[in-house]
Amino acid sequence: MSLALGAHVGAHMNAHTAYTVLDLIGTFAFAISGAVAARQRRLDLFGIVVVTFMVACGGGIVRDVCIGAIPPAGLSNWAYLAVSLLAAALTIAAYPQVRRLRHPVLFFDAIGLGLFAVAGAQKTWIWTNSAETAIVLGMVSAVGGGVLRDILLSRVPAILEREIYASAALLGASVQMGLTYFDWSSFWTPWVATAACVALRLAALYYGWRLPVFQTRDLVKKPPRKAAADEASQDAH
Amino acid sequence: MSLALGAHVGAHMNAHTAYTVLDLIGTFAFAISGAVAARQRRLDLFGIVVVTFMVACGGGIVRDVCIGAIPPAGLSNWAYLAVSLLAAALTIAAYPQVRRLRHPVLFFDAIGLGLFAVAGAQKTWIWTNSAETAIVLGMVSAVGGGVLRDILLSRVPAILEREIYASAALLGASVQMGLTYFDWSSFWTPWVATAACVALRLAALYYGWRLPVFQTRDLVKKPPRKAAADEASQDAH
Amino acid sequence: MSLALGAHVGAHMNAHTAYTVLDLIGTFAFAISGAVAARQRRLDLFGIVVVTFMVACGGGIVRDVCIGAIPPAGLSNWAYLAVSLLAAALTIAAYPQVRRLRHPVLFFDAIGLGLFAVAGAQKTWIWTNSAETAIVLGMVSAVGGGVLRDILLSRVPAILEREIYASAALLGASVQMGLTYFDWSSFWTPWVATAACVALRLAALYYGWRLPVFQTRDLVKKPPRKAAADEASQDAH
Repeated sequence: MSLALGAHVGAHMNAHTAYTVLDLIGTFAFAISGAVAARQRRLDLFGIVVVTFMVACGGGIVRDVCIGAIPPAGLSNWAYLAVSLLAAALTIAAYPQVRRLRHPVLFFDAIGLGLFAVAGAQKTWIWTNSAETAIVLGMVSAVGGGVLRDILLSRVPAILEREIYASAALLGASVQMGLTYFDWSSFWTPWVATAACVALRLAALYYGWRLPVFQTRDLVKKPPRKAAADEASQDAH
Repeated sequence: MSLALGAHVGAHMNAHTAYTVLDLIGTFAFAISGAVAARQRRLDLFGIVVVTFMVACGGGIVRDVCIGAIPPAGLSNWAYLAVSLLAAALTIAAYPQVRRLRHPVLFFDAIGLGLFAVAGAQKTWIWTNSAETAIVLGMVSAVGGGVLRDILLSRVPAILEREIYASAALLGASVQMGLTYFDWSSFWTPWVATAACVALRLAALYYGWRLPVFQTRDLVKKPPRKAAADEASQDAH
Repeated sequence: MSLALGAHVGAHMNAHTAYTVLDLIGTFAFAISGAVAARQRRLDLFGIVVVTFMVACGGGIVRDVCIGAIPPAGLSNWAYLAVSLLAAALTIAAYPQVRRLRHPVLFFDAIGLGLFAVAGAQKTWIWTNSAETAIVLGMVSAVGGGVLRDILLSRVPAILEREIYASAALLGASVQMGLTYFDWSSFWTPWVATAACVALRLAALYYGWRLPVFQTRDLVKKPPRKAAADEASQDAH
């Protein structure tokens, strides 16, 4: 990459100090959710740290690899690792308290989702100048960590069968790119896009909105694994 | 990447319009197989779209990341996304009809397999000039999407335990690279290589050919739980 | 990448012929462990070869993609593929003998772990000049193959819930980077770092050391299925 583009990216990033703080809050909320899931699966100390880090940084690492931002920020910026370690330590030391945090965690997770989707879309746009790539990778930045967590824990990724989650990230990345692409972008663009994502996610949580699942006749005849998955998704609410 | 190489790649790609059409047919066949699998697992609307897109484009994205073709064509070329969305919409709207397509789907899937293996090998060769990398990544282009689908659906990838599928892709990529490497390549090279892959795959389907599975005494004697524990204590890490 | 850096990397690598030999021994030990696991899962011939190759080379490929060393050495250097094929062939042809190798395999695996962690950290340092990235990717080089094996075989990666394994790789990569970063590096640096990793791993095996697992009251009280459902409803996404 040319130095000029490097400087441009650098300037763009430094302009948003408040943004960086919110990014770290989002990372922290994601990391807490990873640490809780890892501890519930009874992984050992190291396993908890790895899963925590993957949830917090995995989506961004996949995005950076796909756009050629080498080495990925999640690996080269010590702040992400530090936040992950902090979240893992907190979850281990104060598990009952963290468990009781369900609502705050869901709230910050929704904010993290919006911030990651918008920041991921923006970074991809700067590096590739492709709006489609920016929307797809903005969503991947936001939900990739959770997908990697579920792959590591050997279960079907939750975002594929439950709730309006990735769709909210898709909305946030699309609003950001729509405004940017048609040159309506301003100081408020990322905040509007983030707010759209967060609002959709919180409304879906509050009202229990879900995307349709399509019943198929051949499934009625199928094995018990299906029933277990169904049971799990029913118990969830 | 230098502009000269970019132009070379561009010229090479533009020369094959018929090729592009067949590539999209292959993508469509792959996408249909992904959408059917996702719908059978009762994923929601979004989950179906994601799995469909991964099956259609996942292998190519992994290849492009490995050869440095950034951003991957599967993300930056809207045609692949459009074909995936079309396949997902068709599978949702006309599921009984699509289900009845088993034989046409297997036929187009075999053609997609051959085209992806050969095109993947050729693209890798142009970017890396390494015949071994081209053969391995040609195969990965063809089967990677199916492997990612099975990882997302939390099952052992079908290609690792069933049928002559990846081996047919390996044959196609190897024929392409063999002819190219020893400078016997001509206008017909990709078609011969694709035909070799498709013929082997269809013959294996028709005659039920399979690769050998090696029986092990210790697996026959033990119940699954016990075998798993033994396996855990046996393997090195 | 500039030619000068390329030459530097080349010179650095060529200097260590003994190192290359030990690297291939480590690759071979990793490959044997992959082939044994694949055969126990009754994968077919092709599945065994793929899993063997992934265990031997997967970690290095992930590292090379993350640092931009394109195409990854595991794909472009035929020696790694040849060693993997040899290990797969041996495991298929002489399975009872290989099964009886438990202790030698664990021993060579520990040596491979140390060599991969240190070499991975060193390569990452040369390419990125970031000590944190080098430590993380050094560990990834060493354990990534095993994690990919477990993901392909649809089980929770062993390193997340068992034994001191990844932690030993972390120690090796950290010692290497600590000495390099503070300019205490010498001819002996990689050997000291490798020895630290191997010694910790072998001692942990011999004395049965493990990392702590944190018991949680809610898991003890619930049957597994119920706990999983609770987990699904608890974590954020």
